[in-house]
Amino acid sequence: MQIESSDVIWRNARLATMDPAHMHAYGLLERHDLVIRGDKILAVVPEGTLPNHQCRVIDAENRLITPGLIDCHTHLVFGGNRAYEWEQRLNGVSYAQISAQGGGINSTVAATRASSIDSLLHHAQQRLNALMAEGVTTIEMKSGYGLDLESEEKILQVIKQLSTDNLIDVSATLLAAHTTPKEYKENPDGYIDLICREIMPILWQKGLFEAVDVFCENVGFTLAQTERVFQAAQSLGIPIKGHVEQLSNMGGSALIARYHGLSADHIEFLDQPGIEALSKQDTVAVLLPGAFYFLRETQRPPVDLLRQFNVPMAVSTDFNPGTSPFASLRMAMNMACVQFGLTPEEAWLGVTRHAAQALGRQQSHGQLSAGFKANFIVWDAVHPVDVFYELGHNPLVHRVFNGKITDSSSNTRG
Amino acid sequence: MQIESSDVIWRNARLATMDPAHMHAYGLLERHDLVIRGDKILAVVPEGTLPNHQCRVIDAENRLITPGLIDCHTHLVFGGNRAYEWEQRLNGVSYAQISAQGGGINSTVAATRASSIDSLLHHAQQRLNALMAEGVTTIEMKSGYGLDLESEEKILQVIKQLSTDNLIDVSATLLAAHTTPKEYKENPDGYIDLICREIMPILWQKGLFEAVDVFCENVGFTLAQTERVFQAAQSLGIPIKGHVEQLSNMGGSALIARYHGLSADHIEFLDQPGIEALSKQDTVAVLLPGAFYFLRETQRPPVDLLRQFNVPMAVSTDFNPGTSPFASLRMAMNMACVQFGLTPEEAWLGVTRHAAQALGRQQSHGQLSAGFKANFIVWDAVHPVDVFYELGHNPLVHRVFNGKITDSSSNTRG
Ligand SMILES: [Zn+2]
Ligand SMILES: [Zn+2]
Repeated sequence: MQIESSDVIWRNARLATMDPAHMHAYGLLERHDLVIRGDKILAVVPEGTLPNHQCRVIDAENRLITPGLIDCHTHLVFGGNRAYEWEQRLNGVSYAQISAQGGGINSTVAATRASSIDSLLHHAQQRLNALMAEGVTTIEMKSGYGLDLESEEKILQVIKQLSTDNLIDVSATLLAAHTTPKEYKENPDGYIDLICREIMPILWQKGLFEAVDVFCENVGFTLAQTERVFQAAQSLGIPIKGHVEQLSNMGGSALIARYHGLSADHIEFLDQPGIEALSKQDTVAVLLPGAFYFLRETQRPPVDLLRQFNVPMAVSTDFNPGTSPFASLRMAMNMACVQFGLTPEEAWLGVTRHAAQALGRQQSHGQLSAGFKANFIVWDAVHPVDVFYELGHNPLVHRVFNGKITDSSSNTRG
Repeated sequence: MQIESSDVIWRNARLATMDPAHMHAYGLLERHDLVIRGDKILAVVPEGTLPNHQCRVIDAENRLITPGLIDCHTHLVFGGNRAYEWEQRLNGVSYAQISAQGGGINSTVAATRASSIDSLLHHAQQRLNALMAEGVTTIEMKSGYGLDLESEEKILQVIKQLSTDNLIDVSATLLAAHTTPKEYKENPDGYIDLICREIMPILWQKGLFEAVDVFCENVGFTLAQTERVFQAAQSLGIPIKGHVEQLSNMGGSALIARYHGLSADHIEFLDQPGIEALSKQDTVAVLLPGAFYFLRETQRPPVDLLRQFNVPMAVSTDFNPGTSPFASLRMAMNMACVQFGLTPEEAWLGVTRHAAQALGRQQSHGQLSAGFKANFIVWDAVHPVDVFYELGHNPLVHRVFNGKITDSSSNTRG
């Protein structure tokens, strides 16, 4: 290996590589050099083994370095505010009354449709800033509060703009099948038609998203409706994923597996046949502990069975205005351990290697390994668990994106 | 009323005064002027009613102003790190094994005894920075990881130094009766003697604390031992409070009420006779949802009965290394609503007026009212619930302490 003068070497660090090639938990390597060329990792080698070099060497001062965090399931772009309906519920107003007032997801759809691009950008940017400040370098964002061609496109354009404006990798997902809009209230199949025949093909043609998601649930779309969306996606070559088994077991996970989906998300009510199906396709199970906490759910996802069948588990904020308004992936990791019993290593894999896999980016993101993107975080921490055991104080020292150091005041591009 | 040129007027704000004299929820006043003289609030008056004045006027730009947040129960000063034993537990190691390795509170005591003042200061300062950045202007901190005269004094000296170093009001509490130190393992009554005859009177004489706390629990001190500490405190004129009814109902709250205590803290297992006792003395019930979350407790505090008997409820982080490592009072407010069913107004009173009362400072802290300290927060928020419905993004715009604007980079004195 030849070191070039423009390369950068990070030295004197503990590397939690998350690379399965290394035997220790977290793929931990002590006293290794992390060599960066451009926006990629060139090599990870034991200290003192590099040939002579005259490039820049950065002393990590014995700190911990991990891959940049990947938040693989968010609904970051929306209008309106659901805090007031939350206050009403806590003050004793019934769900029925709030729904009759136009509350719930419909209020977010109405507010999002009415919002300008600038307003949507401004609010999403604040949440994105919070996530980036804690080390997120890749984020997935879904549409799903527009529910018509124009409004879904508006959200996806905002996501594209956020990707342009910020030093972060963004993966956009079309979630037009989030709920049935009021104009199709009596005809949900007609709305599925609209998605399959217009919204999805037109916005795919415009290159505005890279996967399609469906909310398959007794309060969402049926299994048959979900499959119609997946079929249409398949015919266009679009990867699929789904919100499944959150409130009941509808068989959505097995359906996702049948369509070689990227991930099955929520899955509190997933059963063994569904787990076996995911396992065979190496589909990722995405756990969303923020919503579990906020809704005071009691049915925990089947973590033991997922382990038994080697289903990769990811962890995400599920940031959304109504059921998980928490823009902190460190908090989601903490909650995944406290509420679901994940080990800290599983939580870490869940926001790195496995989260990358949920986005189809497992060859380029989520590990400190040669050939992967140079997105990583330097922490004021001895051990990976230190990063999210305590909350409040943020132990991030450096955020490196595309090989370059950013910080919370300079996460935006140019 | 005469306005002096050195006064400051905050104009064009919504004031969530928390003053019970005002009829709206949160004591909310629209279009009022908040007049500051020195470190106190001089007046709260309707806009346009002040006499002519030439003082500084600050436009709050229609933002929300609340009293500064009060975190009335923390264990912020300690040595060591319990993250690794948490990871062991999540990896399947039993409590018994961890305890046999010297884990749990004993490991914190050993590490705290071995820590230098500088090291204790450094770590506590990081957590304090996080709390202040979210709007805390008054904080209580307990000793309790020293468990001998010298080490308890060391912790209280660190607390005093933190008070000197930071733009925050600090209330120190002696919690020597946190657990029995290993050298008294066979003789807990001997340790209670040591507290009553030496630790408490000597450190009281030195002016190092303003209240005494006891952990009254089946895994802590008995009711009789707790009463011995309270008696000794009473004879010295020291206010008392207690960690009570967290894991079982020992009658600690009624005992606290009998000694006219400031607060009964935790109280998941509190029963109606205990609530009636608190109610008669106007003792505050301090709810600690962080520990409830982290320990996955299921017994919720009796919020309905507390309401019925008009017991003031406070909410606090209970920041501590083993059971509530969360330096975010906004998160504690969110958890109090989600987990315990508090209304957002109760959560707000719990970190302002009622938290002040738990510290005996209800005449000077926790309200935007004439004569109270000018400690307040300007939020980028429309309504008080907005401040803690979403977490991650911090909506704090200005933190005002003793009448002067501070910010997260200038919370330290001088
Ligand atoms: Zn979701
Ligand atoms: Zn405590």
